[in-house]
Amino acid sequence: MAPIRLGMIGGGKDAFIGAVHRIAARIDGEFELVAGALSSTPEKSRASGAALGLSPDRCYGSFDDMAVAESARADGVQAVAIVTPNHMHAAPAIAFLARGIHVICDKPLTATAEQAQALEQAVRASRALFILTHNYTGYPMIRQARAMVAAGDLGAIRVVQVEYPQDWLTEPAEQTGENKQAEWRTDPARSGAGGSIGDIGTHAHNLACFVSGLKVESLAADLQSFVPGRRVDDNAHILLRFQGGARGMLWCSQVAPGNENALRLRIYGEKGGLEWAQEDPNYLWYTPFGQPKRLLTRGGAGAMGVANAVSRTPGGHPEGYLEGFANIYTGAAAAIRAVQAGQTPDLDALPGLDAGLDGMRFITACVDSAAQDAAWVAL
Amino acid sequence: MAPIRLGMIGGGKDAFIGAVHRIAARIDGEFELVAGALSSTPEKSRASGAALGLSPDRCYGSFDDMAVAESARADGVQAVAIVTPNHMHAAPAIAFLARGIHVICDKPLTATAEQAQALEQAVRASRALFILTHNYTGYPMIRQARAMVAAGDLGAIRVVQVEYPQDWLTEPAEQTGENKQAEWRTDPARSGAGGSIGDIGTHAHNLACFVSGLKVESLAADLQSFVPGRRVDDNAHILLRFQGGARGMLWCSQVAPGNENALRLRIYGEKGGLEWAQEDPNYLWYTPFGQPKRLLTRGGAGAMGVANAVSRTPGGHPEGYLEGFANIYTGAAAAIRAVQAGQTPDLDALPGLDAGLDGMRFITACVDSAAQDAAWVAL
Amino acid sequence: MAPIRLGMIGGGKDAFIGAVHRIAARIDGEFELVAGALSSTPEKSRASGAALGLSPDRCYGSFDDMAVAESARADGVQAVAIVTPNHMHAAPAIAFLARGIHVICDKPLTATAEQAQALEQAVRASRALFILTHNYTGYPMIRQARAMVAAGDLGAIRVVQVEYPQDWLTEPAEQTGENKQAEWRTDPARSGAGGSIGDIGTHAHNLACFVSGLKVESLAADLQSFVPGRRVDDNAHILLRFQGGARGMLWCSQVAPGNENALRLRIYGEKGGLEWAQEDPNYLWYTPFGQPKRLLTRGGAGAMGVANAVSRTPGGHPEGYLEGFANIYTGAAAAIRAVQAGQTPDLDALPGLDAGLDGMRFITACVDSAAQDAAWVAL
Amino acid sequence: MAPIRLGMIGGGKDAFIGAVHRIAARIDGEFELVAGALSSTPEKSRASGAALGLSPDRCYGSFDDMAVAESARADGVQAVAIVTPNHMHAAPAIAFLARGIHVICDKPLTATAEQAQALEQAVRASRALFILTHNYTGYPMIRQARAMVAAGDLGAIRVVQVEYPQDWLTEPAEQTGENKQAEWRTDPARSGAGGSIGDIGTHAHNLACFVSGLKVESLAADLQSFVPGRRVDDNAHILLRFQGGARGMLWCSQVAPGNENALRLRIYGEKGGLEWAQEDPNYLWYTPFGQPKRLLTRGGAGAMGVANAVSRTPGGHPEGYLEGFANIYTGAAAAIRAVQAGQTPDLDALPGLDAGLDGMRFITACVDSAAQDAAWVAL
Repeated sequence: MAPIRLGMIGGGKDAFIGAVHRIAARIDGEFELVAGALSSTPEKSRASGAALGLSPDRCYGSFDDMAVAESARADGVQAVAIVTPNHMHAAPAIAFLARGIHVICDKPLTATAEQAQALEQAVRASRALFILTHNYTGYPMIRQARAMVAAGDLGAIRVVQVEYPQDWLTEPAEQTGENKQAEWRTDPARSGAGGSIGDIGTHAHNLACFVSGLKVESLAADLQSFVPGRRVDDNAHILLRFQGGARGMLWCSQVAPGNENALRLRIYGEKGGLEWAQEDPNYLWYTPFGQPKRLLTRGGAGAMGVANAVSRTPGGHPEGYLEGFANIYTGAAAAIRAVQAGQTPDLDALPGLDAGLDGMRFITACVDSAAQDAAWVAL
Repeated sequence: MAPIRLGMIGGGKDAFIGAVHRIAARIDGEFELVAGALSSTPEKSRASGAALGLSPDRCYGSFDDMAVAESARADGVQAVAIVTPNHMHAAPAIAFLARGIHVICDKPLTATAEQAQALEQAVRASRALFILTHNYTGYPMIRQARAMVAAGDLGAIRVVQVEYPQDWLTEPAEQTGENKQAEWRTDPARSGAGGSIGDIGTHAHNLACFVSGLKVESLAADLQSFVPGRRVDDNAHILLRFQGGARGMLWCSQVAPGNENALRLRIYGEKGGLEWAQEDPNYLWYTPFGQPKRLLTRGGAGAMGVANAVSRTPGGHPEGYLEGFANIYTGAAAAIRAVQAGQTPDLDALPGLDAGLDGMRFITACVDSAAQDAAWVAL
Repeated sequence: MAPIRLGMIGGGKDAFIGAVHRIAARIDGEFELVAGALSSTPEKSRASGAALGLSPDRCYGSFDDMAVAESARADGVQAVAIVTPNHMHAAPAIAFLARGIHVICDKPLTATAEQAQALEQAVRASRALFILTHNYTGYPMIRQARAMVAAGDLGAIRVVQVEYPQDWLTEPAEQTGENKQAEWRTDPARSGAGGSIGDIGTHAHNLACFVSGLKVESLAADLQSFVPGRRVDDNAHILLRFQGGARGMLWCSQVAPGNENALRLRIYGEKGGLEWAQEDPNYLWYTPFGQPKRLLTRGGAGAMGVANAVSRTPGGHPEGYLEGFANIYTGAAAAIRAVQAGQTPDLDALPGLDAGLDGMRFITACVDSAAQDAAWVAL
Repeated sequence: MAPIRLGMIGGGKDAFIGAVHRIAARIDGEFELVAGALSSTPEKSRASGAALGLSPDRCYGSFDDMAVAESARADGVQAVAIVTPNHMHAAPAIAFLARGIHVICDKPLTATAEQAQALEQAVRASRALFILTHNYTGYPMIRQARAMVAAGDLGAIRVVQVEYPQDWLTEPAEQTGENKQAEWRTDPARSGAGGSIGDIGTHAHNLACFVSGLKVESLAADLQSFVPGRRVDDNAHILLRFQGGARGMLWCSQVAPGNENALRLRIYGEKGGLEWAQEDPNYLWYTPFGQPKRLLTRGGAGAMGVANAVSRTPGGHPEGYLEGFANIYTGAAAAIRAVQAGQTPDLDALPGLDAGLDGMRFITACVDSAAQDAAWVAL
C-alpha cells in the first residue's frame, strides 16, 4: 500500500522533536514526507527541506502558504505533523483541518486556553482526524498495562504514583543564549503558563489516566521555580484525586540531577500492582498480591496480544522511544486509511482532542491551585 | 570491656521487633540481655525469658516490678530496650529514666501527645540517655549521604522525595484474628492516631530530615483508609515544605502490592543528587550534575570514613537491616559508656527525644491537615 | 539526497530477520526498497512484495533473475540485502558483487568453508562493497566501549567475558513442524556445522573482538546438544586465548530458560573494566580501578562523540535493537555513497569480509576442538 | 539454653575473617567466645583477647597450649573456630578433634594434600564434629535454590554457570608491605598451590555443587597470574563436566576491576532456571520455561520453609553476608547440641569434611589441568 503523503510544520535544523517525528513516521513505512513549512522563511525552509530530500517547490515559508498550495495539488499532503513550539500548534492545525487534511500534533494541545478552544472547534468541525503525540502511550508494555487494568487484574485501583524527573534545566540554560529548546520551553509566551507541568507533567498526567482508565477529579499543586530568574515552574509536586476514589501523586521536575527522562508509573489496586519505567520500557513488573513479582517483557512469555500488536521484534531485542513514538504514527496511519475507506477508525488507544483538552485542564488546574497555595482545584 | 547489662520491656513470643532489638544488641557484643518484662504476666514472661536464657528471677510480670527490682541490684540492668506497642512506650521509659537507667525505645515516641509530653519531662529530668530506634539512620550509606549533604556536595537542597510503600495490609489482615501485628498497629488506642503515617511515615520523615539536615516547616496531607473497616490510615500522600525553601513529597502506604519494605530516599540540590533504597542498602547513587552517575558502595572505593566507621565487612559482603539496627545499639553503647565515664556522649547521629518529638509533630500535623482536606499545617 | 535503491534476497512472510533489515534500512531514510527475490517462486515473491509496496515487475522468483534484470535497468538496485538462511548467502552475494552491486549480508558469512572461499574471491574481485550485519557492533555504547579500549582507558586487556544465552530452543521446537526458524537453524545443511555457535556464538565472538581490538589466537570448545535428536550444538562453553595474552570465556546457549537474547560483554584491563548488556543497551558500566563505578548512558553526560554520532535521541530516550541495526545500514549507506563519489569509504567500524572470515574460523575451530574433546585449536 | 563455649584459633588484630566468625557466632546467641589462641605469642594473644573481653588466663600463645589447658577445664571450650591462614588449619583442627572438641574451620580445608589427608583421618577418628565455613551455602535463598532443584522444579540440570570475580588484587598489593591479607593469600607456602582458585574458586565450586546437587566429574582449567611477580593464579577460566551430563563454567578472578565480591550462580534445567547473586542475596530469580520471570524474595511470598527457617526478618528487611555466615554457626550449634544430647545431628546442609575434600580435589585438578595446558582432569 502506498505510504500516506505527509507534510511537516516546524522541525527545521536544531529541532529535536521534528527529527523524532520524521523517524517515527518512517519506521513502519506508512508515511512519506513530501512537503514542509519547516522554518519561518522560504529560504530556511528550503535549506532544511533539501537536507531531507524534499522538492524545493514543496518547501514553504509559512503553514498558510503550504495549506493553500498543498490542498490544491492532486498529490498534496494527506496529513501534516505539527512540531512547532506550543503557541504555534493551533493556527496551523486549524488551517489544515479546515481543508480536510489530517493533523498529527505534538503536545501539549496549545499554549493558551483560547487557542485550545479555537482548535477544539476546528477539530469538531472537520472530517479530518486530529492526533496528539502523547507518545508514551505507544509503548507496548504501556498498552499491556492498560489492558491488564481494564481486565481487572489489579482489582479496583487505589493508588497511582507517577513521576517524570529530568535534570536538563538544573542550571539557567535558557540564559546562555545557546539553548533554543530551553529558551522557548521556559518562555510563557511560547510555552504557555506551565513550565515543567506543560512540557512533561502533561505526559505524566496523560499516562496515568491512559493506563488507569481513570480521570483526575481534582488536584492540589505546589509549583516551584527553583532557578533564579526562571519564569515558569521547573518542579511540581501534585496531589491527585481520581474519579471513583483512587488517589495519587505526580512529581515532575527539570532540576533533579541524574534524571535524564525518568518517567515512571506505578499503579496499585486491591489485587495487585504494576510498575513501569520509560527508560527501560521493555519491562513491566506485575505484582499480584501475595505472589512473587513477575517481570513481564515485551515480546516475552507474559506479553499479551495488545502489546505484541505494536511490537516489531522478539523478546530481548529491545525496542525504544522511537518505536513507541512510531506506534502513534502507525496507529494514525491505520485510522487515516480507515477514514479514507469510509470506515470508522479505531481511536481507542490513540490520543486526540480529548486527551489534549484534559492536558490543558491539568495545566490550568495546576496553575490555579498553586496560586491558591496548593488548594484543591477541580479539573 | 564487659557488655552493658540490658533489660527488655515487651518482646515476648510472636513479637517481631523484640527479636530484632535483641539481635541488634548482640551483633557487636556491646550488650548482654540479663532481664526482661517480656510479657504481661510473670508466667508468660518467664516462659519467654527461658527461651532467651534469662534467669527466672529476672523475668518480671511488669515493668514496674522490674524497675524496682533491677534498680536495687548491684548487677541490675544498665539500660532497657522498650519494644512494646506505642501506647506502652512512655510509662516504662519514665519508670526507668527516673531510676537513672538508660532507655532505648522503639519508634514512634508514644501513642498520644500527652504521653509524649510526660516522656519529654522525664527525659529532660533524667541523667540517663533516651535513644529512639529510628534504625534506618544507622545504615552506613545513609550516614554517608548525610555527610555528603552536610559537606555541600549537592549544593543547596531543592527537592526531597521520600517514600515508604509496603503491602502487608492490602487486605483486612487485622480482621482475621490471626495477625497480632496488624491488630495493634491498626488500633488507634494502641498505635495512636496515625496508621501508616505513624508506623512507617515517621521513619520516612525522620530519614528525610536526617539526611537533608532540614526540618519540615509545613505539610499538606491526604490520608486514606482504603480497606473497609480500617480505623487508621493505610496510605498517605503528603506535600512537604522544608525550612529554607526546599520542597518534597512523602508517600507511605501499606496497601501497595509488591512492595515489601520499600523505603526510598532521593535528594536533589543545585549541584547534584543522591538516591538510596532501603531494600538494597549497600548502594548509594551519587549524581553530580553534568557528570555520569556514580554507584557508591558500602565498603567500596567511594565509601567515606563516616560510613566505614559503622561497617563490619568489606565491599561486596552485603550488610543489611540488622547491621543498620545494630549501629544504633552500638552507638548507644558508646554514648552510655561515655556517660558512665563522666564524658559528654556524642549524640550527633543518634536519634533521641528531639527526633521523637519531631515524629509526633509530624503525625499530628498529618492528621490535622487531613481533617482540613489537606490544608497546610505547620509543624 | 535521494535514498539508495535497495533490493532484498529472502525476507518473505514469516521471516524474522528480513523485516528487521527493512526497518533498519528505513529508519534514517537512506535506503528505499525497490525490488526483491523475497521467496522461492515468482508468485510467492510477488505476494510478499505486494505487502511491501513493491512493483510486481520487480518481484523476482530467483536472485539470478533479479541480478540479471536489475543490473540491466537504469534505475536498478544499487545494493541488496541478503537475509536468506546461511547456505543461501554466498550464491546471491557472488551474483550481485559480480555485477558491481553492493551487498549487505546477514551473518554468519556462509554455511560452509567452501562457500566462504568462493565468496571471499568474489568480494576481492568486486569493486562493490560487502557488509556483514554483525549488528550489535552498531550500538552506540558499544562504539564507545571500543573507543575507550582503544584510547587505553582500561590499560592492557587481561580478561574478556562474553556470553549470549537464549532459551527458545529449550524444547525440541524444530520437531513440531510449526517453527521454520527452529528448523533451518538446527539443520546442518542450511545452517552449517554450527548450531548455537553459528547463530549467536559468532555474534559474541565478533563483539568481543570488535570492542577489545584483539583477535582470538586459539580456543577450546565444549559443545553440547542437550535436546535429544538435535543435530547441532545448542550450548557451547569455550575458553579463549587472545593475541597478546588476554584470556576469556564465551558461553552461548539456546537452552537457558529465562534468557531471551542476553548477549553480554565484560572486559577488564590493568586499569579498569567495562560491562555492557544487549538487553539494556543504553547503559555502559565503566569501572576505573579504585574508583566508584560509573554508569555511562547513551546521550548522557559521559557519552563520547563516537557514540553520539550514531545516536538519534537525547539521554533517557532509549534506543534499541532496531536503531543499532540501522547504524550498520546507515554506515553502509555512507560507505556506498563514498564509493559512488570515487572516495575511499570509512570502513573502520563496519563489519565485512574479514569479520565474516573470522566468524567462519571461529565456527570451524569450535567444531574441531569439540571433536578433540575440547583441545586447543588455533584460529 | 546456655550458649556453647567457643574458642578461636587466629583472628587477632587486622584479621578480617576472624571478626566475621565472631559476629556470626554471636548473632543468634548460640555461642559465647571464652578463649583463644588469637595470635602467635601469648602477649599478642592477650592483647587481642582483652579487646574481645576474654579473660587473660584463657588467651593462649599457641593452639597446643590452648588444647591442653581447655580440655582440662570443666568449663573449657566445647568448640573452636579456626580462622588462621590455610596452612594452619590442619594442625589445630587435629589437636582439638583429638580431644573431642568440635571444630568450625575456615575454608579451604588445608594448604596441601598431605595436610588434608591427616585432617581427614582426625575427623574420621573423632566423635566431635568438623564444620567447614563454606558460608555462602548459609544464605536463605541459596537454601531455597537447592531445595527447588532437588524438588525437580528445573527438571534435569543441563548448564551450571558460576563465577566469582573480585578486583582487590588488580595491582600487586602483596608487594607493598602493607597488606597482610594479600601477602599470605598469594604465598603458596601459606595459601597452598591455588591463588584465586583456592580463595574464591573453592567457594564457587562448592556453591555450584551444593545447589545443583551434582558433583564435578572432570574439569579443564586455564589459570593465569596476570600481575607480574605473582606466585599464584589471580584469574581462572574453567570448563566443568558434572556427573550425569550437565556442563558448566567457572570463572574466578581477583583482577576484574569493578567487582567487589561478585559471586554469582546460574543454573538451567530442562524446565526452568535459577539465578542468584551474592551481592544482592535476598533475591532469587526463578524462570520456569515459557513463563514470565519471577523474583523470589527472602521472607516474601515465594519464600519456602527451608529459606524461612534460616531467616530472621520479614521480606524487604535485607539480611546479608553476616546473617548467611551466622546460619552456618547456628546450624553448627544445633548439630553440636544434638551430639551432646546423644542424637544424630542433621548435617544435610552443613558443609564439612566431604565438602572440604571436594574443594581440595578441585584445587588439585585445576593446577594439574593448567599444567597440561587445560587438559581434562578427573576429580
